[in-house]
Amino acid sequence: MIRLDDTESTIADINLYQDRIGPYLEAIRQKNQGFHTIIDDTKTLDDIMQFVRSVEGRYTHIVVLGIGGSALGTLCLQQSLTPLYRAHPHNSHHPHLYVLDNIDPALLQETLEVIDLKKTLFIVVSKSGKTPETIAQYSFFRKQTDNADLPASKHFVFITDKKKGLLRTISDKEAIPSFIIPDNVGGRFSVLTPVGLLPAALIGIDINKLIRGAHTMRDIFYTDDIEKNIPFRVAALQYALSKKGKSITVMMPYAQKLERFADWYRQLLAESIGKAHDNDGNTVNVGLTPVKALGVTDQHSQSQLYNEGPNDKFFMFLSVQDFGTDMNIPVIHDDPSIDYLRDVSFATLMHTEQKGTQQSLIENKRPLITISIDTINEEYIGGLFMLFECATAFLGEFYSINAFDQPGVELSKVITKKLLT
Amino acid sequence: MIRLDDTESTIADINLYQDRIGPYLEAIRQKNQGFHTIIDDTKTLDDIMQFVRSVEGRYTHIVVLGIGGSALGTLCLQQSLTPLYRAHPHNSHHPHLYVLDNIDPALLQETLEVIDLKKTLFIVVSKSGKTPETIAQYSFFRKQTDNADLPASKHFVFITDKKKGLLRTISDKEAIPSFIIPDNVGGRFSVLTPVGLLPAALIGIDINKLIRGAHTMRDIFYTDDIEKNIPFRVAALQYALSKKGKSITVMMPYAQKLERFADWYRQLLAESIGKAHDNDGNTVNVGLTPVKALGVTDQHSQSQLYNEGPNDKFFMFLSVQDFGTDMNIPVIHDDPSIDYLRDVSFATLMHTEQKGTQQSLIENKRPLITISIDTINEEYIGGLFMLFECATAFLGEFYSINAFDQPGVELSKVITKKLLT
Repeated sequence: MIRLDDTESTIADINLYQDRIGPYLEAIRQKNQGFHTIIDDTKTLDDIMQFVRSVEGRYTHIVVLGIGGSALGTLCLQQSLTPLYRAHPHNSHHPHLYVLDNIDPALLQETLEVIDLKKTLFIVVSKSGKTPETIAQYSFFRKQTDNADLPASKHFVFITDKKKGLLRTISDKEAIPSFIIPDNVGGRFSVLTPVGLLPAALIGIDINKLIRGAHTMRDIFYTDDIEKNIPFRVAALQYALSKKGKSITVMMPYAQKLERFADWYRQLLAESIGKAHDNDGNTVNVGLTPVKALGVTDQHSQSQLYNEGPNDKFFMFLSVQDFGTDMNIPVIHDDPSIDYLRDVSFATLMHTEQKGTQQSLIENKRPLITISIDTINEEYIGGLFMLFECATAFLGEFYSINAFDQPGVELSKVITKKLLT
Repeated sequence: MIRLDDTESTIADINLYQDRIGPYLEAIRQKNQGFHTIIDDTKTLDDIMQFVRSVEGRYTHIVVLGIGGSALGTLCLQQSLTPLYRAHPHNSHHPHLYVLDNIDPALLQETLEVIDLKKTLFIVVSKSGKTPETIAQYSFFRKQTDNADLPASKHFVFITDKKKGLLRTISDKEAIPSFIIPDNVGGRFSVLTPVGLLPAALIGIDINKLIRGAHTMRDIFYTDDIEKNIPFRVAALQYALSKKGKSITVMMPYAQKLERFADWYRQLLAESIGKAHDNDGNTVNVGLTPVKALGVTDQHSQSQLYNEGPNDKFFMFLSVQDFGTDMNIPVIHDDPSIDYLRDVSFATLMHTEQKGTQQSLIENKRPLITISIDTINEEYIGGLFMLFECATAFLGEFYSINAFDQPGVELSKVITKKLLT
């Protein structure tokens, strides 16, 4: 079960908004956005699994070419649901996954030097089919496979729009396999479409379980009971606290494998809620600045600021009960300075430090909540994706802005094109 | 050369403070902090190189056990100055480096499963010699080497205080080699001590060049000419802009290999400047919240917020002229939608997107500066470390706070200990 623990002080803030949950749910439904309906598409799941079976054993390397929403969900799935190191023996049953979300020439060149081109599948992800960074990456690797006389239809898969864009044109012309990003699913909401599911399935992640977990959370999202609707409670709090000057949302997972979940959320929150204009056209310049932190690591980097600096942050802790493995800290040396570590397991130390960090923040009057999962598995990760996508949709309603567009990135694209031509 | 480009609007802010540079420099010198003098210690450099030569060929894996300032500099050195992937052929001449800066049992267990214990050197880093996370990690791996009858003196090196703490006691008793973190160098300022230099030297990084680059920047730091003193200009701007509501400092390198530099800086800025009390004991709760972003990647994640959200950020771009490699984007398909990429190199695309992002921010009246280096090498990385350490020291003077302590992390430690016993 995914649990939300809010502290006493924050519950009061949530209850202010209990009459809004019904109308907001209705407003979100009417927007016809796919983030909450896409998980009913069982046909795509079957198509993905059929593709995965058809290429089994053919590839040693999978390289995802994409940026932003085309990469962040996949990076999160890889980190949370497979071993942390490519060299780990458990990874030998599956191809190694590389996600290239930048165009730095050193990144491209060094990737080329570690993959076995003849046994590599490139997954090219771009909703518009013409994202310049992704097209540039694709062109670079396509040149390599062409030079090596490797057939494009065996070494590339495209994930793009159903009809529009360059990738669709090429796919049609050269019989390159492809999957579809639905019209009504924006990049940052696309992890439970082929964008995240195809690479995940190729490295052995059970995508049916991911979707099952998302379903459980969607049921919670659809309820208008404020006690049960976790996404609404999260959004209500973020909104209420932003009115009190908490303009920064810190997501702090206490689990190494959830670090990239906070990266994924960074995009979701920043692009969805950072908006110049509200739905009535008023200039509002709203937005919550997402900050990623990792427990316990960042206690030794950010806690000083979080406890003593400006009280401008709202903290969302992600907590994991069972890390999948655990062991006691062995007592090698008898020394009073470390006596308190005796008979303590690493999981217990993680949990206790989390509590220490939280109690310290509470004493310093910094607002926080904890979202807990039993363990890191497909169901819970699917549920967490859905939780924060739904919370972000609610947050758009609170702010009365469009949470599903991104008009503010156009200007730099125009300038870049102009400078290049 | 390391260059600072400030835009016209920001220069006015800097010039407000030109009478402060002399007094602040003098105040910093009198604090007797080691961050700017440690680079004169050539003996330690020689000791490190002698140790590295004495173990040449003995280890396939180096595992650093440390957290916060004991890890972040090393992670940055590894990413910026060696290939991005462990599997890269260039890495075959040196041991593979793992930096463990968390106590998640899955991280420890999976690391154990990828290293060859018989050929592993563990570098245990803790200034106090009793950091609980580091002692717990050390105990875990020490138990493993003991069980395998591997001599501790051949598989461990300690980096710790000269006299105090458990690690010093063990080192003395068991003849475990050790290096010293000087008294007057705090963890977040320690990358140019053995903390960063020993692991760096073991994986083939030229630490003499690192120090040389730091020297060049220190000369710049010691000048009281406001036109030339880059660290002072950076600090003056951060301070002036914080007075205008820019309480978030975004560091955005446009180079894959500088991403972790921004992580290193996150700790430096947060712990040094996030303070409840000023030097006169007044409650001030000051602090700048550091945010790490990566170009061009985060254009597709954060630009929307940066351009349209609240105008509460100051942007520091890190720019690299030469990425060490470059190639033109091949034109595989004739299509008008990508015509503007024709004959453009990846480096040019990086640079042009950076300009596009910056011009867009400027049009939206968001303040920014650019710090540029010719290429990513030891000298420039050493110089950048020194630049931001010096800027942070100046910033402490501007705020009239102690930039070198971290009183706000004690409370959570006390609570954690209490909960465990």
